[in-house]
Amino acid sequence: MPKITRDQVKVPVDVAPEARETYIDNYMAATRETGRLMLFACDQKVEHLNGDFYGEGIDPADLDPEHLFKIGSQGVCGVLAGQRGLIARYAADYPEINYLVKMNSKTNLVKTAQDDPYSPQLHDLEAVLAMREAGVNVVGLGYTLYLGSEYEATMMAEAGQLIAEAHAAGLIVVLWIYPRGKAVTDEKAPALIAGAAGVALCLGADFVKVNPPKASDEATSAENLKIAATAAGRTGLVCAGGSTVDAETFLTQLHDQIHIGGACGNATGRNIHQRSLDEAVRLTKAISAITLADYEVADALAVFNGEKDFAL
Amino acid sequence: MPKITRDQVKVPVDVAPEARETYIDNYMAATRETGRLMLFACDQKVEHLNGDFYGEGIDPADLDPEHLFKIGSQGVCGVLAGQRGLIARYAADYPEINYLVKMNSKTNLVKTAQDDPYSPQLHDLEAVLAMREAGVNVVGLGYTLYLGSEYEATMMAEAGQLIAEAHAAGLIVVLWIYPRGKAVTDEKAPALIAGAAGVALCLGADFVKVNPPKASDEATSAENLKIAATAAGRTGLVCAGGSTVDAETFLTQLHDQIHIGGACGNATGRNIHQRSLDEAVRLTKAISAITLADYEVADALAVFNGEKDFAL
Amino acid sequence: MPKITRDQVKVPVDVAPEARETYIDNYMAATRETGRLMLFACDQKVEHLNGDFYGEGIDPADLDPEHLFKIGSQGVCGVLAGQRGLIARYAADYPEINYLVKMNSKTNLVKTAQDDPYSPQLHDLEAVLAMREAGVNVVGLGYTLYLGSEYEATMMAEAGQLIAEAHAAGLIVVLWIYPRGKAVTDEKAPALIAGAAGVALCLGADFVKVNPPKASDEATSAENLKIAATAAGRTGLVCAGGSTVDAETFLTQLHDQIHIGGACGNATGRNIHQRSLDEAVRLTKAISAITLADYEVADALAVFNGEKDFAL
Amino acid sequence: MPKITRDQVKVPVDVAPEARETYIDNYMAATRETGRLMLFACDQKVEHLNGDFYGEGIDPADLDPEHLFKIGSQGVCGVLAGQRGLIARYAADYPEINYLVKMNSKTNLVKTAQDDPYSPQLHDLEAVLAMREAGVNVVGLGYTLYLGSEYEATMMAEAGQLIAEAHAAGLIVVLWIYPRGKAVTDEKAPALIAGAAGVALCLGADFVKVNPPKASDEATSAENLKIAATAAGRTGLVCAGGSTVDAETFLTQLHDQIHIGGACGNATGRNIHQRSLDEAVRLTKAISAITLADYEVADALAVFNGEKDFAL
Amino acid sequence: MPKITRDQVKVPVDVAPEARETYIDNYMAATRETGRLMLFACDQKVEHLNGDFYGEGIDPADLDPEHLFKIGSQGVCGVLAGQRGLIARYAADYPEINYLVKMNSKTNLVKTAQDDPYSPQLHDLEAVLAMREAGVNVVGLGYTLYLGSEYEATMMAEAGQLIAEAHAAGLIVVLWIYPRGKAVTDEKAPALIAGAAGVALCLGADFVKVNPPKASDEATSAENLKIAATAAGRTGLVCAGGSTVDAETFLTQLHDQIHIGGACGNATGRNIHQRSLDEAVRLTKAISAITLADYEVADALAVFNGEKDFAL
Repeated sequence: MPKITRDQVKVPVDVAPEARETYIDNYMAATRETGRLMLFACDQKVEHLNGDFYGEGIDPADLDPEHLFKIGSQGVCGVLAGQRGLIARYAADYPEINYLVKMNSKTNLVKTAQDDPYSPQLHDLEAVLAMREAGVNVVGLGYTLYLGSEYEATMMAEAGQLIAEAHAAGLIVVLWIYPRGKAVTDEKAPALIAGAAGVALCLGADFVKVNPPKASDEATSAENLKIAATAAGRTGLVCAGGSTVDAETFLTQLHDQIHIGGACGNATGRNIHQRSLDEAVRLTKAISAITLADYEVADALAVFNGEKDFAL
Repeated sequence: MPKITRDQVKVPVDVAPEARETYIDNYMAATRETGRLMLFACDQKVEHLNGDFYGEGIDPADLDPEHLFKIGSQGVCGVLAGQRGLIARYAADYPEINYLVKMNSKTNLVKTAQDDPYSPQLHDLEAVLAMREAGVNVVGLGYTLYLGSEYEATMMAEAGQLIAEAHAAGLIVVLWIYPRGKAVTDEKAPALIAGAAGVALCLGADFVKVNPPKASDEATSAENLKIAATAAGRTGLVCAGGSTVDAETFLTQLHDQIHIGGACGNATGRNIHQRSLDEAVRLTKAISAITLADYEVADALAVFNGEKDFAL
Repeated sequence: MPKITRDQVKVPVDVAPEARETYIDNYMAATRETGRLMLFACDQKVEHLNGDFYGEGIDPADLDPEHLFKIGSQGVCGVLAGQRGLIARYAADYPEINYLVKMNSKTNLVKTAQDDPYSPQLHDLEAVLAMREAGVNVVGLGYTLYLGSEYEATMMAEAGQLIAEAHAAGLIVVLWIYPRGKAVTDEKAPALIAGAAGVALCLGADFVKVNPPKASDEATSAENLKIAATAAGRTGLVCAGGSTVDAETFLTQLHDQIHIGGACGNATGRNIHQRSLDEAVRLTKAISAITLADYEVADALAVFNGEKDFAL
Repeated sequence: MPKITRDQVKVPVDVAPEARETYIDNYMAATRETGRLMLFACDQKVEHLNGDFYGEGIDPADLDPEHLFKIGSQGVCGVLAGQRGLIARYAADYPEINYLVKMNSKTNLVKTAQDDPYSPQLHDLEAVLAMREAGVNVVGLGYTLYLGSEYEATMMAEAGQLIAEAHAAGLIVVLWIYPRGKAVTDEKAPALIAGAAGVALCLGADFVKVNPPKASDEATSAENLKIAATAAGRTGLVCAGGSTVDAETFLTQLHDQIHIGGACGNATGRNIHQRSLDEAVRLTKAISAITLADYEVADALAVFNGEKDFAL
Repeated sequence: MPKITRDQVKVPVDVAPEARETYIDNYMAATRETGRLMLFACDQKVEHLNGDFYGEGIDPADLDPEHLFKIGSQGVCGVLAGQRGLIARYAADYPEINYLVKMNSKTNLVKTAQDDPYSPQLHDLEAVLAMREAGVNVVGLGYTLYLGSEYEATMMAEAGQLIAEAHAAGLIVVLWIYPRGKAVTDEKAPALIAGAAGVALCLGADFVKVNPPKASDEATSAENLKIAATAAGRTGLVCAGGSTVDAETFLTQLHDQIHIGGACGNATGRNIHQRSLDEAVRLTKAISAITLADYEVADALAVFNGEKDFAL
C-alpha cells in the first residue's frame, strides 16, 4: 500500500490558511501517511466505568490506566483517543503518541429507558489548544453524537461548532455517531448507519466512527457498509471494534470492512486493551498491518501470533 | 425578462454601510441579476438522512455526495444550499458555485408525536465568515424555523439574531418556515402560509421558503400563494419543491407559483438530485429558464428534454 | 395643551451622562413634545400572523405591509412600533417616522392551555444600535412581558437588562405587560393591571402598555385605570386599543382613559391599520388630537370624519 | 450604643484591595456607623404586586410610589432596598438616601403548588455600577434565595457569583433567604432558619435577612433566633418584619430579636410604608432607635408616638 | 515516611508552563511534602445545613463557624476545604491555613426521590484567582460530581472545564465523586466506586474523594478500595470520613484504607469539627500522623489521647 503525499491530502476549506500545514501534518501523522486511520479507543473509563478494565476475561494489567499508554507507545497505532484529563496525566511520559482528545463523554448509569443519551463536551477547545501549545502531541479531536436522541440538537450544535473551530486551528476531527434513544428502534439498521455517515460529512468531520450495519436480506454487513462509506463522501468512515472477540474473527471482519465495505480504518478499544501488554501490542500491529499496509488476514494473524513483526 | 441593475436592489437598512456593496454583489449573484432566486436545496443528508439519496426510484449517482456539486457546477442555479461542513469538503474543487450555508438542521428520527421540532444552529456566523475570508464563495445563509413548535421561541431568537448579523456582514438570508408541532393541525392552511411569510418579513429575511398552500374552496394553491407573497412584502417568497414528480407537472406548478402566485423563485432539492447527472443538470436549466428568464412551460420542457440549451 | 420643555423631562439616573441629550431628544420626539405617547402598534404580523391583516372587515390595503408605513408617514403618530426586520426593510423609504423597535414577539399558535406564553427577544440591542448609527430614526424599544407565566422569570430578566442597556444608550423603553398563563384566571382584574403597572416602574420602563382593567362593582374601567396609573408612578401608562370598534366608541374610551384614568397616551394597532389608508390616516390624527392636544371627543370625531384637519 | 470605627469593620478578603475604602464607606453608611442594619424594604411592588400598596387598612398615600422615597428621605433608615428601575426613576430627587439595589424579584402569581419559586436576577452588576459611577448613592445589593426550591441551584449560583463581584467592587450584599418549595414543609422551623443563616455565610454575604424562626418546645422564637445568629458567624443576621402589626408588638419583637436573638438589625417594609407619611417616618425613627441606638421599647414607642424625636 | 522532593511531583501537562512552579508549590503545601492529602472538609454548612453543627452529640463550640478555622489553624491538616464565601470571611485572621475552595454545593432539602442531585458551581474561577492575587493562601479547588444523576452531564462539563482552567493557573483540584440518583441502586458498590475513581482520572483531577466501597463476598472494603485506587491511576484517591464514630475505629479504618486500600489520604469533616476544639485538634494530628507520617494506629491513638504530640 503506497503512502500518500502531502499534496494528496484534501484539505477542507474551513482549515484556516495559516493552519493548513499543521492540518496536513496532523492528518499525515494520524493516518501514518496512508490516508487510513487506526484509532486506539481509550475513552471507556468514563463510558463504561471500570467494567471494561477489570473482571473476568480481562487481563489484570488493564486495571492500571498506564496500560493504555504502554500499548499506545509500544504498539502501532494512528492515534490514541482519550479524554483530555487522562492524556494530561500521562503524556509527559509518552510524548511520542499521537493524541486525539475525546471532547465529550458520559457514563452508562442512566439508561435510555430513563432518559435519552446526551454526552456533554467536557471543556472548551481552548483547553486543548493550550496543551498543544505546551508541547503535547495532540493531532485531533473526537466527539460522540447520538442521532435520534431527544438531545440530538445540543450535540449537533456542539459538534458543528467544534469542527469549525478545530479545523480553523489545524486539528482533525473524528465523530463517533450512534443512533440511540427512544425514537430509535434498530440502532444498526443499514439505512441509519448510512444516514449517520452523511451527517458526519455535513458537519465537516474528517472521519466518522460508526457501528457496523447489520446484514440484511439483500446484503452482508460489509456490503451494507459500502453504502454508508459512499454516503460519507469525503469523510472517511471507520468501524467500531465492539466487544472482545477472537483475533481471527476480528481481523477478518476488519479486512472485509476495508476491502468490501470501503472503510478507511478502524476504531478499536476493548479488543486491544483487555489483553496483556504483549498480546495487546501484537494486536495493534496486526490491525495496523491490515489497515495501514493492506495485509491479508493470514499475514496479519501471523503478526498477531508473533510469527512476524510489523512496523511502519 | 430584463435584468435588474445594482441600484434597483432594495438594500435593507441593517446592512452595514461598509458591507453595502458586498450585499449587492451577493444579491446580484444569488439572483443571477434578476431579483429572482433559484435555490438548489442540498441539506437533506441531515434532514432526511440517506433516504433521499439511495433507494428505489433514485439514480445511483445520488449516493455519492459529490453528485450535488457536479449538478451545481454544470447546471444553472442561483445558489447551492447546504451545511457548512458539506460545503467545506468540496468547495475547493467547485469554486464557481454560489454557496448558501444552511445554518441549522435536524434529522427526522424524533417525530412530532414524541417532541416538537427544533433544529439547532450548528455553528456561529464567525465560522462562515472565516470561510468567506479564506476565499470561499459564500453569498448567504439559510435557517429553518418551525412556527408553532414548542421551541418556536428559540428558533425565532436564533433567526432574528442571525439575520441582523448576516446583513451587517453583507450576506443575504433565506428562511425556511414550516408551521409544525402539536399545536399545528393543518401545516399547509393558506392563512398559516401567509402568516409564515409575514414572520419572515418581520425577522428581516431576504427570501422565505414556504410550502405551497393547499387549495381552498375559494382559491387554487397558486391563488392562495399570491396572498402569502403579498403578505411577505419586500421579502421574496419562494416555494419548496417537495417530493419528486414528473418534470412537466413540476414545471407547470413552478410557472403558476411565479405568474399567479407572485413567487419570486423556487427552492428545489430531491426533484433535481435524485436524477442522473445529465437529467439533473437539464432540470436545473429548465427551472432556471422559468424562474430567471420567464420561459413558458413548453419552452422550459424543451430545455429539460435537451431540445434546447439554456444559459444565462 | 402646552408643550413640555426639554428640562421638564425627568431623565432617569440610569441614562448615561453622555446619552442624556439623546434620551431627551428621543423622549421629546416620541411624545411630540407633550409627555404623552401615541404609539402605532405594528407588531401583529408575528403576534397574530396574517389574521389581523386579511379577511372579512379588513381593508384589502392592509395585506401589503407597506400600508403600515404609509399610515405612519401620512398620519400623526408618536412612534411606529414594529420588529427590527420589518423596519429594516422599509425605513429607507420612510425616514421621517419615529421607530420603536419591538424586541420580542411570538406567534399565537401555541395556546396557554398547551404551554404558558414566552416571547423571546429576537436579537441583541447591538443590532438596534447599529441601525441607529447607520442613520435610522430609532427612538426607543418595546418588550412584551407576560406576568404570571411560568416563563415570567426569563422575560423579567430580559426586560430588566434591556431597559438598563437601552437607557444607558439614550433610548426610551415601552413595556407591554399582560398577565397571562395558567396561574392567571382574570387577566383584566383591576388589581392585576395595577400590579403590572408597578412592575413596569420597578423595571424602569418609560411607558407601560396595559389592557384596560375591567369595570368592578365599585368603579368603571377608567376609574380602575386611575389606580393603575398612580401605581405606575413616574412610568407613563398607556392603554392597548384592542380589537376594532367604531371610531366614536374608541375615541370616547381613549378620552376617558386619559382624563379619568390618568393614562398618558395610547397604543393602537388593528383599529388603525385595518382601515383604508385615508381612513387610517384620519384616525391617527383623531387619536393624536385627543392624546397630544387634549381635544374633546366631538372635535376629534370631526378630525376623523375629515371635517377638520389636525397637525402638530 | 457606641459607634464603630472604620478599622473595626471586618473587611472580607474578597473585597479587592483597591475597593477596600469604598467597602468600608458603604458598610459605615449602611449601618450608620453602628455595625447594625436598619433596612427599609421597598421591593414589594413586584413581589406582592399592588396588594401591599392599596386596599383596606393601607393609607392611600402608599399608592404613589414616591411615598417610599419620602419616607426614606425624611425618616431614619440604613438603606432603602428596591429594584434598580424603581431607584432609577426617583434617585435624582432623593440623592441623600443610601440605596441597596434588589437584584432579583418575582411576582406572587405562580404559587408553589404549580411551580417551585425562582426569582431571576433582573440585570447584571454592570448596570448597577454604571449608576453608581453616574453619582447615584448605591451602597450595596440584595438578592433573594429560596432554599429547597427545585431552582435552588440557579439561585445559589447567581448569588454566589454576585457576592464575589459585588465585594470586588466594594459593595455590601444582603441575602434574603427563605426556605420554600415542595420539599419544604415547615418554612420557619428553627433548624432550617439556622441552616439558611449558615448558607449566607458560606456564600459570603454581609447580612442575611431571614424570617423569625417559630417558637419550639424548648425555646422562644428569639432564643431560636440566637442559634441562627450564631450559625451565621461573621454574616450579620436581620429579621424580616412581616405583615403589619401594631407598633408596640412590633418594637418589642425587634428588641427581643436584637437583645435575645443576636440579630444585628431588621428589614421592614409593609409595616412602615402602609402608614401615612408622618406615621411611617416616626416608625422608621422608633425602629432605628432600637436598632442603631439600643433604645428600650418604651423609649422607642415614645419616638413613634411623636413624644420625642430621634436622629443620628 | 520520607518527604517527596519537588522534582518527584508528576506535574500534569495541562499545567501552564508559567504556572508550573506554582502548581508544585501548591501540591507540596497541600500534601505537606508527602504526596498524601489530609483534607479537612468544612463544606457541610451548605450540604447538611445546620444539622452537622448543632444538636445532640455535637460539641456546642461547633455552632460558631470560627471553630472550623481554629481547628485548621491549631491542628495539623493539609488543606481546609470550604466555600469561597466562608473562607473570605475568616481568612484574614487565619492566613496560615492552606485553603481549598469548594466550588459547588447544594443543600439536602430536595431529596433524590423528588429530583436527581445537582450541585451548582457557585462562582467562576476568576473569583478565586482574585482572592489568591490579593494574598489569600488558596492552593486548590474542590468540586462535587454526582455520577448517575440526570444532571451528570452538567456537572461533568463544569468539572472538566474547571480542572483545565485550574491547572492552567497552577491550582490543584480535588473531585468529590458520589454515584447518586434514581439510576443508582447501590451507591457504594465496589465497581461503581472504582468507576468513579477512573472518571476522576479522565477529568484530570489531582485527587478524588470517594466513599469507601462496601465489603463484598470476595473482599473487605479496604481490598475493594485497592481496586479503585489502582483504577484511579495517577489521580490520588482519598476516602470520605463519613459520620462520627469513635476515634479508634476511625483511625483503624484510615490505616487500612491507606495501607491495604492504596488510598493516598483522607477527607474528614464532621468527625473532626463536632468535637471540642482541643479534641478536634488532637484528632487532626492523629489523622495526619497516619496519613502523612505512616504512624501505626496505636501511636496515632496516643496522639489523639494527648499522650504524645505530633507536628510536621
